[in-house]
Amino acid sequence: MSILVVGSVAFDTIETPFGKAEKVIGGSATYFSVAASFFTDVQLVGVIGDDFTEEHLGVFRDRRIDLQGLERVRGAKTFHWSGAYGFDLNVAETRATDLNVFADFNPQLPESFRTPEVLFLANIDPELQREVLSQVERPALVALDTMNYWISSKKAELEKTIRQVDLVIINEAEVRQLTGDANLVKGARAILDLGPRTIVIKRGEYGVLMVTADRIFAVPAYPLEVVFDPTGAGDTFAGGFLGYLASGSDHSEGRLRRAIIFGSVLASYNVEAFSLNRLKEIGRAEIEARYRAFRELTEFGDYDATDVS
Amino acid sequence: MSILVVGSVAFDTIETPFGKAEKVIGGSATYFSVAASFFTDVQLVGVIGDDFTEEHLGVFRDRRIDLQGLERVRGAKTFHWSGAYGFDLNVAETRATDLNVFADFNPQLPESFRTPEVLFLANIDPELQREVLSQVERPALVALDTMNYWISSKKAELEKTIRQVDLVIINEAEVRQLTGDANLVKGARAILDLGPRTIVIKRGEYGVLMVTADRIFAVPAYPLEVVFDPTGAGDTFAGGFLGYLASGSDHSEGRLRRAIIFGSVLASYNVEAFSLNRLKEIGRAEIEARYRAFRELTEFGDYDATDVS
Repeated sequence: MSILVVGSVAFDTIETPFGKAEKVIGGSATYFSVAASFFTDVQLVGVIGDDFTEEHLGVFRDRRIDLQGLERVRGAKTFHWSGAYGFDLNVAETRATDLNVFADFNPQLPESFRTPEVLFLANIDPELQREVLSQVERPALVALDTMNYWISSKKAELEKTIRQVDLVIINEAEVRQLTGDANLVKGARAILDLGPRTIVIKRGEYGVLMVTADRIFAVPAYPLEVVFDPTGAGDTFAGGFLGYLASGSDHSEGRLRRAIIFGSVLASYNVEAFSLNRLKEIGRAEIEARYRAFRELTEFGDYDATDVS
Repeated sequence: MSILVVGSVAFDTIETPFGKAEKVIGGSATYFSVAASFFTDVQLVGVIGDDFTEEHLGVFRDRRIDLQGLERVRGAKTFHWSGAYGFDLNVAETRATDLNVFADFNPQLPESFRTPEVLFLANIDPELQREVLSQVERPALVALDTMNYWISSKKAELEKTIRQVDLVIINEAEVRQLTGDANLVKGARAILDLGPRTIVIKRGEYGVLMVTADRIFAVPAYPLEVVFDPTGAGDTFAGGFLGYLASGSDHSEGRLRRAIIFGSVLASYNVEAFSLNRLKEIGRAEIEARYRAFRELTEFGDYDATDVS
């Protein structure tokens, strides 16, 4: 099975209370691809400039990532984001966004990319998301991510795109912004009403909530003593989640839940270091160990019938 | 088994986006006692004025709550708190705190109250908490709650009291305020270093984190479509948690985890209406049903060994 992702490949300049990283590899499609490649074959659609060198591309090599859809624009620069996190690491302050080649990004999928089983439309212009969707045979599962910028500037276009997808991955502030409802469950149901079958709400250090028509699943984030840099956590989560899901054809509630855990596992590793440095170090053993740690973190037994009187 | 609680019995005037309640029954010891009484015998220590009538006392009647320790001061008024919640219901804005009889609260335990198995020192002056502790034979388990006010005004006294208890129930902002560490796990470990064996961190709509020397347990809050009034949620949680725990002598990790769920169950009901109105309606069937709902909300299976390759 394969998954196709369209999104950004970027350089990030990041300052956290623990240090600074200059022009390191980032971008939604980058984090997503590397995380998903632990589970399935990935087709990456994105755009880079001259400054994204062969050495930088090394982050994708020796992984199950097909780069035929990664366009290079000559004479131009790669998307560059610069941001800083305060003491509690929850909110990034954007210092600069240099779109560069990303400003004119107009994805054209190679022929071999037009039949993915799963499609992930990372956070890009919702009109562009629909343009990508029009270029593929309808996959078994289409998911999208978005951000506050599109909700405020192109809400109608975004809702039109949401109507065409199966699954929405979104953070909790965005649910409230998009639906105008402070209650997260009601907000999720309002998005379900647009058409998607599944809403996956990212809550940062508080974990994930998955809402479908008749079930809700909640899992806390893995409690870490060292959260070094939260950049890319959401896309890494999405990559682990959908990458695991795309490794089989079963999209039942039970398998969706396990996929949420694998996504949470990958995200928990990612925040332990700058850029993709931690993801580069881990393998199957680390992923399985933390999946088991999630079980130990969350499990509680049934009560004894004599307990409640 | 029995549990003793010392804390406030009060009137609350509350405004939420959904309505207003004038001078309804509240107070930490009230919420705690009613919640704990679903599981065990409760001894309540507190103080009221003339205005807390027999009718108001009805909230405690027909429950396993012993009121011998509830002192009435003649010619004076009961503690009155007035507050309001904004759209997201996460933070209460205090409009007025009229301590009244609570200002001179100096608990003297009746003889029959001096051998509780479990003692809960609700949010009162940490020096008063130690004074209560000195009046009982050392219980099997002593727990305390506190608040930002005592952390800023009597930190040394609070730390002295924390050194004498087994379990601390505290919200996450207070962990950060008390320890100066933005990381919650490190903050919890700093409190463990003072002496308690268990730190239970309340995270409001995000649930609860329990930290011991060698384990961490995390559970999300029950996702509700209607959160009507969060007042008393923390004390109701503590009552369900410690009440269940006090119903037996087993304080193992497994039973502590089940107790956390029962506390979360009670708190989730409590926020569905003003004052103790919802707690008055529920019984064993509702509690057991929501415990099962917590299992359904959080359970996820083991992965297949072939899943990760």
